[in-house]
Amino acid sequence: MQTEDHVYTELRAATLADGLAPYGLIEAAAIAVVAGKIAWIGRQAELPARYAGLKATSLGNRLITPGLIDCHTHVVHGGNRAAEFELRLNGASYEEVARAGGGIISTVTATRAATVEELITQALPRVDAMLAEGVTTIEVKSGYGLDLETELNMLRAARALPDHRPIRVVTSFLGAHAVPAEYAEDADGYITKVCLPALRAAHSEGLVDAVDGFCEGIAFSPAQIARVFDLAKTLGLPVKLHAEQLSNLGGAKLAASYGALSADHIEYLDGDGVAAMAAAGTVAVILPGAFYTLRETQMPPIDLLRTAGVPMALATDCNPGSAPMTSLLLAMNMGCTLFRMTPEEALRGVTSHAARALGLSDCGTLAVGNRADLAIWDVAHPAELAYRIGFNPLHSRIFGGQL
Amino acid sequence: MQTEDHVYTELRAATLADGLAPYGLIEAAAIAVVAGKIAWIGRQAELPARYAGLKATSLGNRLITPGLIDCHTHVVHGGNRAAEFELRLNGASYEEVARAGGGIISTVTATRAATVEELITQALPRVDAMLAEGVTTIEVKSGYGLDLETELNMLRAARALPDHRPIRVVTSFLGAHAVPAEYAEDADGYITKVCLPALRAAHSEGLVDAVDGFCEGIAFSPAQIARVFDLAKTLGLPVKLHAEQLSNLGGAKLAASYGALSADHIEYLDGDGVAAMAAAGTVAVILPGAFYTLRETQMPPIDLLRTAGVPMALATDCNPGSAPMTSLLLAMNMGCTLFRMTPEEALRGVTSHAARALGLSDCGTLAVGNRADLAIWDVAHPAELAYRIGFNPLHSRIFGGQL
Ligand SMILES: [Zn+2]
Ligand SMILES: [Zn+2]
Repeated sequence: MQTEDHVYTELRAATLADGLAPYGLIEAAAIAVVAGKIAWIGRQAELPARYAGLKATSLGNRLITPGLIDCHTHVVHGGNRAAEFELRLNGASYEEVARAGGGIISTVTATRAATVEELITQALPRVDAMLAEGVTTIEVKSGYGLDLETELNMLRAARALPDHRPIRVVTSFLGAHAVPAEYAEDADGYITKVCLPALRAAHSEGLVDAVDGFCEGIAFSPAQIARVFDLAKTLGLPVKLHAEQLSNLGGAKLAASYGALSADHIEYLDGDGVAAMAAAGTVAVILPGAFYTLRETQMPPIDLLRTAGVPMALATDCNPGSAPMTSLLLAMNMGCTLFRMTPEEALRGVTSHAARALGLSDCGTLAVGNRADLAIWDVAHPAELAYRIGFNPLHSRIFGGQL
Repeated sequence: MQTEDHVYTELRAATLADGLAPYGLIEAAAIAVVAGKIAWIGRQAELPARYAGLKATSLGNRLITPGLIDCHTHVVHGGNRAAEFELRLNGASYEEVARAGGGIISTVTATRAATVEELITQALPRVDAMLAEGVTTIEVKSGYGLDLETELNMLRAARALPDHRPIRVVTSFLGAHAVPAEYAEDADGYITKVCLPALRAAHSEGLVDAVDGFCEGIAFSPAQIARVFDLAKTLGLPVKLHAEQLSNLGGAKLAASYGALSADHIEYLDGDGVAAMAAAGTVAVILPGAFYTLRETQMPPIDLLRTAGVPMALATDCNPGSAPMTSLLLAMNMGCTLFRMTPEEALRGVTSHAARALGLSDCGTLAVGNRADLAIWDVAHPAELAYRIGFNPLHSRIFGGQL
């Protein structure tokens, strides 16, 4: 469907542009959209004559932000873990949960059993919840297949989501997410025999935008992650990493040494890691939903990141185990409430900084030339987006210029 | 509008009836609705012939629960406190926030400035968010007027909500919520000159279903609360209390001595208070949203309450300061995640136990004779309602037999 050229008037634009007013706010603004892109944005009184003839829609003085970007999700996966959630709360021991097939292995089993079509069908209600909150771009990871065919199926499902919904999808290959049961004592063998071949195969099918890993005692060592990142480098793919979530293995520093787009979670990140990220331009992706669910007490070093000028993004981490969460607005509130981020940092975290975490330069701010991905809100002030808990003030969403 | 008699078939009913299977679950069930009430519920195979002729609708094997009940809200109020939220996170001191007009006083000012019509208009988007999650009954408090006319206006607005939306409203008079500036050094004078006269006036206008208070160092002493409860007793009104939220003043025990419907918050409740509540049949209303927002660390004594058999309810506490929250599903998740309640306790907390906290015996369970207030969910198991974070699986809602 072709977009109609349009001028939106009587709006308040939180452009998220740097170096302007808080939130890059422009009052009494207008936005001209031509061919699905922002052709002009500024004070409505200064709208150039050449856009005055376009079809005009008043937005009733509503607040406009860039469409939101969820830069870390596992939204494609099979099954859910509600039964395990209940077992644990009913007092089952770790062993009892494991015997009942709980943990990540249950998601791997359910994901392997699903067809690509079923993976899509199961993901769509979660994607719909994101769209309903003004999200226009999501990242989607593999990592619950842990065999070649299922890793590819997850990415095929992710790539197909835009055929079903008006959403942009960026994929990450996360073969190094967990060691599957069949390689329990041989993580290196898993990397050699499954992960690297799956990455090559996924890349040659055009399924991979970036390469991710989980660097942790319960997952993969820095040396194992480096093997995956070396192949990514050879293939010309950017990298990112689940790092320093439960302990400090120096994962963020390793990722930064590969010029990583982002290091994610990073509760246990130290000053060295922060400095390495700052030098490499690596974005810190903060995931408060997992922190909340796991009842962690170690907070990510927000002050250090802020002082070092490391851009901070916020994401849902939408996954069936540690964050069965689909609300990016709630992630914003959690970033503020749990980690004392400011409402402006929270909004940058799901727009401009989230775009940067995905290596995207055509979205995340309201700027000429960017995609016309817009969220229109029934709020008086941008701080309200982070202030409310479990409330969605979205009025409407424009995706690629399409209302 | 008159409801149509109806039989709903092919459903799974979480009746929340006591002494049955977990959740009072009936598989392969049917529900007959006559004159807005549940006329029959049971295994569909046993549906009596007299209901077989009613108009039938298959619910496609979906899960049905009682309509949810939010038994503690301040949903009627003027303004919001997003600016204060932002000021604090930007590092403003307590004095700077106070100078900027922050705190409860800003809500009192905004509420006093609003007409009844404006209070309704501002409440409706919050009510809509609740309805969208299957809520069919809410409690609404006064307490941001702190003068006679505004306390009455808040309750008038609450009473008017059912004229605008399909919802049942139960009101609580909360004149003893805070000491207004004009009585800063004279809380007793406020009780005498404002609170008690306002309660009499509100009661004679038919605006009061129960009487509430806030017993805390920053609010009212047990002796002052007792003065309000004494009048409630004279007027034949049940009482409830914000108790033991920030310290232990023995508020729950005081409330129990008046046969209170509920004691709410109760983070600092001790064993004595638990025993008093158990003896009086007082419900414990758990409010995890305020705990979360205030980053409290003292948890309510869930284990003691459970052992003593005190029914636990869960509510949003929807208010502009400590819980700008409208999601009862999220309150369920927080009850489980933060306080280790079980998913079944969480669901009882927003159905059968919430009804009991409001003194209602015609809702909160799926039982013959109860109102046909039903929530229909796209979930396979009731535990999913508490498991997900910021996701709404509601399929549809039936209110008084009306889809
Ligand atoms: Zn993740
Ligand atoms: Zn309250």
